Amino acid sequence: MSHTSRPQNDTFLRALLRQPVDYTPVWLMRQAGRYLPEYMETRRRAGSFLALCKNPQLACEVTLQPLARFNLDAAILFSDILTVPDAMGLGLYFSEGEGPKFERPLREEWAIRDLTAPDPNVHLRYVMDAVAEIRRALDNSVPLIGFSGSPWTLACYMIEGGASSDYRTVKTMLYNRPDLLHHILSVTAKAVTDYLNAQIESGAQAVMIFDSWGGVLSHAAYREFSLAYMQSILSNLKRSHGGERVPCIVFTKGGGQWLEAIADIGCDAIGCDWTTDLSDARRRVGDRVALQGNMDPMSLFATPDKVEQEARRVMDSFGDNHSGGFVFNLGHGISQFTPPENVAALVDAVHLHSRRA
Amino acid sequence: MSHTSRPQNDTFLRALLRQPVDYTPVWLMRQAGRYLPEYMETRRRAGSFLALCKNPQLACEVTLQPLARFNLDAAILFSDILTVPDAMGLGLYFSEGEGPKFERPLREEWAIRDLTAPDPNVHLRYVMDAVAEIRRALDNSVPLIGFSGSPWTLACYMIEGGASSDYRTVKTMLYNRPDLLHHILSVTAKAVTDYLNAQIESGAQAVMIFDSWGGVLSHAAYREFSLAYMQSILSNLKRSHGGERVPCIVFTKGGGQWLEAIADIGCDAIGCDWTTDLSDARRRVGDRVALQGNMDPMSLFATPDKVEQEARRVMDSFGDNHSGGFVFNLGHGISQFTPPENVAALVDAVHLHSRRA
Repeated sequence: MSHTSRPQNDTFLRALLRQPVDYTPVWLMRQAGRYLPEYMETRRRAGSFLALCKNPQLACEVTLQPLARFNLDAAILFSDILTVPDAMGLGLYFSEGEGPKFERPLREEWAIRDLTAPDPNVHLRYVMDAVAEIRRALDNSVPLIGFSGSPWTLACYMIEGGASSDYRTVKTMLYNRPDLLHHILSVTAKAVTDYLNAQIESGAQAVMIFDSWGGVLSHAAYREFSLAYMQSILSNLKRSHGGERVPCIVFTKGGGQWLEAIADIGCDAIGCDWTTDLSDARRRVGDRVALQGNMDPMSLFATPDKVEQEARRVMDSFGDNHSGGFVFNLGHGISQFTPPENVAALVDAVHLHSRRA
Repeated sequence: MSHTSRPQNDTFLRALLRQPVDYTPVWLMRQAGRYLPEYMETRRRAGSFLALCKNPQLACEVTLQPLARFNLDAAILFSDILTVPDAMGLGLYFSEGEGPKFERPLREEWAIRDLTAPDPNVHLRYVMDAVAEIRRALDNSVPLIGFSGSPWTLACYMIEGGASSDYRTVKTMLYNRPDLLHHILSVTAKAVTDYLNAQIESGAQAVMIFDSWGGVLSHAAYREFSLAYMQSILSNLKRSHGGERVPCIVFTKGGGQWLEAIADIGCDAIGCDWTTDLSDARRRVGDRVALQGNMDPMSLFATPDKVEQEARRVMDSFGDNHSGGFVFNLGHGISQFTPPENVAALVDAVHLHSRRA
């Protein structure tokens, strides 16, 4: 088996490239995760979340779990966006109830000047091994998505040292010492580019950039400190591998006002959060990019018939479901409290409704 | 002194009504608050935040504190949006480090059916007394802004029982039992209408509706569960008092994608958060409404010259500063950690730059 051949189910890739499809493909952000009891069991065996990320066999196991339960049209590498700053030497750890933290947040100018992009095939070898392992296990059934955090999003964690409610430290640097922040972002953009290219060479058939915190920036700062660096990544990304185009999706949570600008940076698709009306979005970006999204993850707490109704509403807001250009997803990662049976109802509803529509 | 006469400095009111002004008026959301040492001292004397809200003399004292320090063009009633659900019997309290909580969150259908709108002149008498007291103390120098939370925002707290990171409880009700949520919103809209009208009768010269959590809704749900209720309030609001027009500002945090729809509900001005480009916003809403905003509150952590530079950028993004239609503000409440000297620099920069421009 060559890991560069086309998957049997290529609906997801065709939709991203705006080619005709028989139905709307669907996958869910964080589809391999805590809402699945089998995930919790594997994580228990791994010992911790980070140990699970760093073990290619177990990362492969959890990547495949949602595909065994649901008729999903793509797999996504199980990993964490913070493995990149971890490989840059910041010392990632997870504290109970407080989320990710760094032992050595970036604050001092000398540490910032010392920052270098890691070799992904050395320092993130475990990720590349997981990608190859997952590709073998998938056996060309559905495509595998690789991913990374955006430079701005990674910089938020690297500078704040963990999650933040107001981004005060990173924004103080942004407004006071933009030169230092630009240095961090530029090294991080190089790291992300190398990391995504290594994932593509290891077998990722599409890639996604998660700009989870781009939406906390002002309109002007978003362009300068987030979008520009995603554009630089895109212009240095291997956009095809083994003769197949590798589409790239950009997702800025809270970026609904900036879709035109995002469509201009050279991505194949834009991920939309649930606040965006897809018919508006489509009108605004025209046929430049595909769209992915955008059901409110909280609507999965309704009864299965209400879940199906909301899924149909989202699909109808995009419109024509056979022309390509649309991938169904949630507008954000699935909640850990989601009843798995509602996910089954959702996935089946997307397929059924789009075949009919 | 009649509390209905025009203030000596009416620049803020003129700007909201899109009448020509000599310079851009400025006030700051949460301008009376924890970043001021004199506020902390008054709050200490009051005993607690809630005791301060419920004491008209002390609420008046803290309302005036920022005006003594800075050349602000408006005062805003010191109070809390959750006094309304408190008056509805939910039992508001503040737990250290966790923010506001309700003793009796709205969960059971019988409690929801029992909900009634309180008489603001009885159950929120202390707010009306504070409004009258502040008007006397201001002595017609600058206008006084009254305010309320939006029905959706209040319902979030009432149903979740406090702050939430995912709004799972209220959204589960939204998707599963929209009838119950509509009942809560409709009683709350009545309560807010009565509350704002009582503030206007007590002397508020402009009012603002804070829809702090409208931005967590999907495009479709925002219209049905937040915007529709703000529209109903606006259509029942006393829009003039003592012969003077009382302008109303609507602020949906995260609502930048929906400005056209907000402009249509009959408000005089839209508050914009810092993610919106004001030139875009102005193009989209035309001359239907004034705009208020929208500097990133975190930019106040820069050096004073960088603060001034960012203020000029925001003002230039709106454009012409003498035609009216623009009130300078932050895009969200000021942070408790803000250096007060930067606020002085900001306020002076807004006045100076707009007189020149």
